Amino acid sequence: MSIPLSIKWEDGQLSILDQQKLPLVIHYLPLETLEDVYDAIITLKVRGAPAIGITAAYGLASAAQSYEVNSLEQFHQFLSRDALYLAESRPTAVNLAWALERLKASVQQSATVEEAKKHLLVEAMNIYEEDEASCRSIGEFSLSLLNDYTKVMTICNAGSIATAKYGTALAPFHLGSEQGKQFQVFACETRPVFQGARLTVWELQQSGVDVTLITDSMAAHTIGAKGIEAIIVGADRIAVNGDTANKIGTLNLALLAAAFQIPFYVAAPSSTFDLSIESGESIPIEERPSEEITHIAGKQVAPENTKVYNPAFDVTPGRLITAIITEKGIIYPEYTENISALIGTERGEK
Amino acid sequence: MSIPLSIKWEDGQLSILDQQKLPLVIHYLPLETLEDVYDAIITLKVRGAPAIGITAAYGLASAAQSYEVNSLEQFHQFLSRDALYLAESRPTAVNLAWALERLKASVQQSATVEEAKKHLLVEAMNIYEEDEASCRSIGEFSLSLLNDYTKVMTICNAGSIATAKYGTALAPFHLGSEQGKQFQVFACETRPVFQGARLTVWELQQSGVDVTLITDSMAAHTIGAKGIEAIIVGADRIAVNGDTANKIGTLNLALLAAAFQIPFYVAAPSSTFDLSIESGESIPIEERPSEEITHIAGKQVAPENTKVYNPAFDVTPGRLITAIITEKGIIYPEYTENISALIGTERGEK
Repeated sequence: MSIPLSIKWEDGQLSILDQQKLPLVIHYLPLETLEDVYDAIITLKVRGAPAIGITAAYGLASAAQSYEVNSLEQFHQFLSRDALYLAESRPTAVNLAWALERLKASVQQSATVEEAKKHLLVEAMNIYEEDEASCRSIGEFSLSLLNDYTKVMTICNAGSIATAKYGTALAPFHLGSEQGKQFQVFACETRPVFQGARLTVWELQQSGVDVTLITDSMAAHTIGAKGIEAIIVGADRIAVNGDTANKIGTLNLALLAAAFQIPFYVAAPSSTFDLSIESGESIPIEERPSEEITHIAGKQVAPENTKVYNPAFDVTPGRLITAIITEKGIIYPEYTENISALIGTERGEK
Repeated sequence: MSIPLSIKWEDGQLSILDQQKLPLVIHYLPLETLEDVYDAIITLKVRGAPAIGITAAYGLASAAQSYEVNSLEQFHQFLSRDALYLAESRPTAVNLAWALERLKASVQQSATVEEAKKHLLVEAMNIYEEDEASCRSIGEFSLSLLNDYTKVMTICNAGSIATAKYGTALAPFHLGSEQGKQFQVFACETRPVFQGARLTVWELQQSGVDVTLITDSMAAHTIGAKGIEAIIVGADRIAVNGDTANKIGTLNLALLAAAFQIPFYVAAPSSTFDLSIESGESIPIEERPSEEITHIAGKQVAPENTKVYNPAFDVTPGRLITAIITEKGIIYPEYTENISALIGTERGEK
């Protein structure tokens, strides 16, 4: 039993857990070249904002080790060119651009090419370790909140394999397992892409956590029938007032938590807050292709020409969220006041 | 554009719409023998309590036409034997046993074998026509309730192809289409068996109804984003206090309707009421095989040995139901009083 990792850096070699092959095949794919890294990101073999950022950081640092250059100026040119290339693998991923910028910044003060190469590796490792520490901190705060509860529901995969280690919403279960606190986790399968069935069930099994799979439609009945005591989810973006964009289906769960009067927690690093956004109403909802719903595992389940509505995210109003758990601490309502107090103006770094 | 039918009786030949092949293949399967009828029911080619009852009735009446017997006594023996055989195709289907009993009762007064054969066909036709009239009546009452609304959500397939014609929850949309009232229906796909995606979308398309498919997890977001004005669902069993057992996922929708303050309607024939049951707590919840969730279209999506909870139904408390629409009229709370008043002791006939 051990917490699965998405990214491995061993003996100067980067490899990633191929999430497209999960849960049937557990394969760590070596990423030898910059093209391999680009491909792994664009084909979703690696997913989760932090994991994508870390992969890109190691990928860029690794590629830079073999630059054959005569000057620091040329080194910076090569680095900018390769960073630009990797940034295009997923232009909307904020963490990706942020990680690449951090790597470029890390060599600004390097005196020699050799030193710059070393600084890049150190910075990639820093990004990895900061994320692991952040997730562990989120896990500890979450554990303190979930202390009285054993039966907890979650959706999607805000997990170890989406981050450096531990994950966000799944962090308390992994830490609990390490510390002898055994949860009974109910994982919603998470249509349309099945991240719950494919990733969360597998990840928690690896860690020795007792996990039960349900369809998203079973959430209400299961809360009542199984005595679910709390719900915890991740987040893609959190507005100043606490409104939280996350995987489609999250709002369902938040409303069910309110109806059953159980706590509803959001676990996310402080980098998830977008202080430029006043409320969830300003968060654009991406719509994804119809085929995600009309076809399952390549097989057509709905008629030809079916009209489909396929929003990727929904927005849960802050008023439905019991607390937001970050690496810096737990934020309770009133969110507008308390988010500013804890996250403040520190944003911008990301 | 026409309302699809599940059962056809033409020139003394019974055929059924093979629902296992929907929505990709529209095939009416002739049921030549009693074994064909048994097979169609047990393999779920025909589904929906009323449709199963009607199919069994026509199947038995049809088989009896070729009995070569010397006496009415022998005729009754053959009929009982065949009824018993068909009843075993789906022992838990109340409508199946009820329809077969009605057929047997219909020949109690027959003076000759020839007369008995005729009475059976007439009785099968009566069952069909009564169900069609009942569904039409439910549709008319539903239309009167939905008069001010255009955007309506539903789950599963309480449809024409589960009944003689029109269906229950889908009846207002079919009737609306006939009468020039165009709804915008949002159909939840209905995991795990996809009756919404496979059957409801197809059925409403056939009838010219504007229907949009969503996953069950999108219900909350869709109610808000698309301005859903009402939710209407079918029922498997209704207790004296209005508590309603229906396809898993129904309770989710009822709680969402309450949260968004939109009406939540249950449409069902009076035969659905089980006046022997005081409340939903006494309704046993069938659990179905894990593979329905871990495998999709034959492909495994969850890890080996995944622990699964797969309840087939949930129970929506009467307090969440705005009204129950039957062929006899619309029932509003207080249900315990008003259900007894409208449905009374008439139950038992079924």
